[in-house]
Amino acid sequence: MAEASVEDNFNGVAVTPWQVTGAVDYDKLIAEFGTAPLTPALVERVERLTGRKAHHFLRRGIFFSHRDLDQILNAYEAGERFYLYTGRGPSSEALHLGHLIPFIFTKYLQDAFKVPLVIQLTDDEKFLFSKHDATLHPLDAYIQLGRENAKDIIACGFDAEKTFLFADSNYIGSLYPNVVRIQRAVSFNQVRGIFGFQLSDNIGKIAFPAVQAAPAFSSSFPHLFGGDAQVPCLIPCAVDQDPYFRMTRDVAPRLGYRKPALIHSKFFPPLQGAEGKMSASDPNSAIFLSDSPAQIRKKVNKYAFSGGRDTVEEHRLYGGDCSRDIAYQYLTFFMEDDERLEEIRQAYASGRMLSGEIKAELVQCLQPMLAELQAKRQAVTESDLNRFMQPRPMSIS
Amino acid sequence: MAEASVEDNFNGVAVTPWQVTGAVDYDKLIAEFGTAPLTPALVERVERLTGRKAHHFLRRGIFFSHRDLDQILNAYEAGERFYLYTGRGPSSEALHLGHLIPFIFTKYLQDAFKVPLVIQLTDDEKFLFSKHDATLHPLDAYIQLGRENAKDIIACGFDAEKTFLFADSNYIGSLYPNVVRIQRAVSFNQVRGIFGFQLSDNIGKIAFPAVQAAPAFSSSFPHLFGGDAQVPCLIPCAVDQDPYFRMTRDVAPRLGYRKPALIHSKFFPPLQGAEGKMSASDPNSAIFLSDSPAQIRKKVNKYAFSGGRDTVEEHRLYGGDCSRDIAYQYLTFFMEDDERLEEIRQAYASGRMLSGEIKAELVQCLQPMLAELQAKRQAVTESDLNRFMQPRPMSIS
Repeated sequence: MAEASVEDNFNGVAVTPWQVTGAVDYDKLIAEFGTAPLTPALVERVERLTGRKAHHFLRRGIFFSHRDLDQILNAYEAGERFYLYTGRGPSSEALHLGHLIPFIFTKYLQDAFKVPLVIQLTDDEKFLFSKHDATLHPLDAYIQLGRENAKDIIACGFDAEKTFLFADSNYIGSLYPNVVRIQRAVSFNQVRGIFGFQLSDNIGKIAFPAVQAAPAFSSSFPHLFGGDAQVPCLIPCAVDQDPYFRMTRDVAPRLGYRKPALIHSKFFPPLQGAEGKMSASDPNSAIFLSDSPAQIRKKVNKYAFSGGRDTVEEHRLYGGDCSRDIAYQYLTFFMEDDERLEEIRQAYASGRMLSGEIKAELVQCLQPMLAELQAKRQAVTESDLNRFMQPRPMSIS
Repeated sequence: MAEASVEDNFNGVAVTPWQVTGAVDYDKLIAEFGTAPLTPALVERVERLTGRKAHHFLRRGIFFSHRDLDQILNAYEAGERFYLYTGRGPSSEALHLGHLIPFIFTKYLQDAFKVPLVIQLTDDEKFLFSKHDATLHPLDAYIQLGRENAKDIIACGFDAEKTFLFADSNYIGSLYPNVVRIQRAVSFNQVRGIFGFQLSDNIGKIAFPAVQAAPAFSSSFPHLFGGDAQVPCLIPCAVDQDPYFRMTRDVAPRLGYRKPALIHSKFFPPLQGAEGKMSASDPNSAIFLSDSPAQIRKKVNKYAFSGGRDTVEEHRLYGGDCSRDIAYQYLTFFMEDDERLEEIRQAYASGRMLSGEIKAELVQCLQPMLAELQAKRQAVTESDLNRFMQPRPMSIS
């Protein structure tokens, strides 16, 4: 299913939009995908332009790679505004922690740069790529999941004035002219090369990449930006989505459009270990936004892979392995306080902090964060949802 | 480009949605496509149910084949109504005589059965399948051609209350749920088998058959029929469109939908001879709705292939060959008076009527017919067009 060069990242490692396995070497991925590393100099420039401290996802290299971010910053510095585009394939009732990463980061970017944001719910994709029986898991089920997920997304705190949330099943009419233009510019051989599609794959899968590409061009949103404007686009996403946007960037000049810029995150690991990415299909590998404090504690204590030693004695002697310890890894994603995180790292690596103790730190970090998201999620009404999903003009000045 | 079994109809003959060449053996086509011949008994049944004489396209075998027309008639007889679906791929500014055939016949069906009609303008298809440079012939040009063609279609006299005209570029949003369901049920291998698509073809072409299939299911028109209704569908079309609907009929049961019924016409021959079909790309092979009386006369006299003999003497002696004479062939399509047509046939076949004389008969038949269509076309306003293109409830009782 995967592009050859990506599958060969090294043994057992695959990075495609549908599968992430193995321990990914992100430096190697930058070289193979042909992206640029997100350097400290670039992070500093973001701080300077936005007048605020960079998000810890930037400071800690969780967003680690980009395409043309420098050009977006050049344009911004010259007074030109851009829009953000990210998305979600609705597959589970509630988002899990891994799904949150791009949304948390996108909210930071929206707040810092004060720019509009479009969020695509690819209910069509999830139906087309589903391995379930279409009678038992019909399109309407994915449409409904999209609406549920949209409430989780809104709970992340996006600016209602500057955010447009849309589902493909509902908004395709506006995207369609660009979808068709992109489809005409891309052959089956090309999507086979990029995504590894087979001759036996359904024709909807084969055509779908154009639907994910279209929102990267501002003319796909005539209601928002006017039909003729060419507003630059910046896409925050996990790096497994890069193949879609490599394709998008390839076709852009042929359509007379600007190439979208990208900023890529690393994967959020499953509870079981620091390989692959968190998956909603195994509830014991994922912590969901809907999990109760007790469920969070239980999942972390029971399933989070430990980088600790086999016995307390050995642990005190040799210390824990932060690079493999899931509790520590998750803290790098969600603990905002750099000093406290560094204290924990030193304590755990030196053996002063035990596995149960670092897990307790994570539980204390996650419980209030998820409780707050749940409260916000509870407060999202159908009317809020409709407001976010209403096409409407967006100021780009 | 064509399905193997169809291309092999016999030497030099190809029948695909994009190409019709050679002298088609229609009996052979019925056997190869697996359709049913439209028998005199079925035509009589149409007359009985509608209480009016059958259209001369039926009496003369111009509509010669069908799928499940008997089932549509059974349902109609039992008091159930159906809807008609036909379409047009906008490729030329004005329609030509060949394009008129399905519309003339569909208008008859609408009047005789008093049923709703949906007409699809596949502007997306024409752009995706175009061999022209996309910069010089952009999507918008096909959208505009669709609007021009729509006025020609309205001039055919369709019932404004019962007819919904839509362009894919504009209406795809309503079709999309069914498009996606159909796409998921059809693989690349299948469309390669049916349509002869290549690996180098663009992904829009590969996915397009689902867009032409979707209007055959009444749930694609929630504004017209309500989302849940399963109204039976009858599709009048030239037989080269059958592959699309064979595919549609194949997927229908898997989607829980009724199979659409079909009624197929023969091809309208080009001026140059009774092989292939009239094409808009060669203006000398086609008579357009926009042609003046002088242009009609000139094209018929100069280009219409004659089944007459080399000299007047030989013609008087042996008579003309009606089976190859384009003037006679066109008269079978457009002269409504059976007796007069038979007189002409006998006079021409016996040599009493000369080639110039039968051409004059055709010119006298076409000139008033096209003058009337042009007058009606002139009278079609943008507001009329918008009225036909407005989604609105349609009575199916």
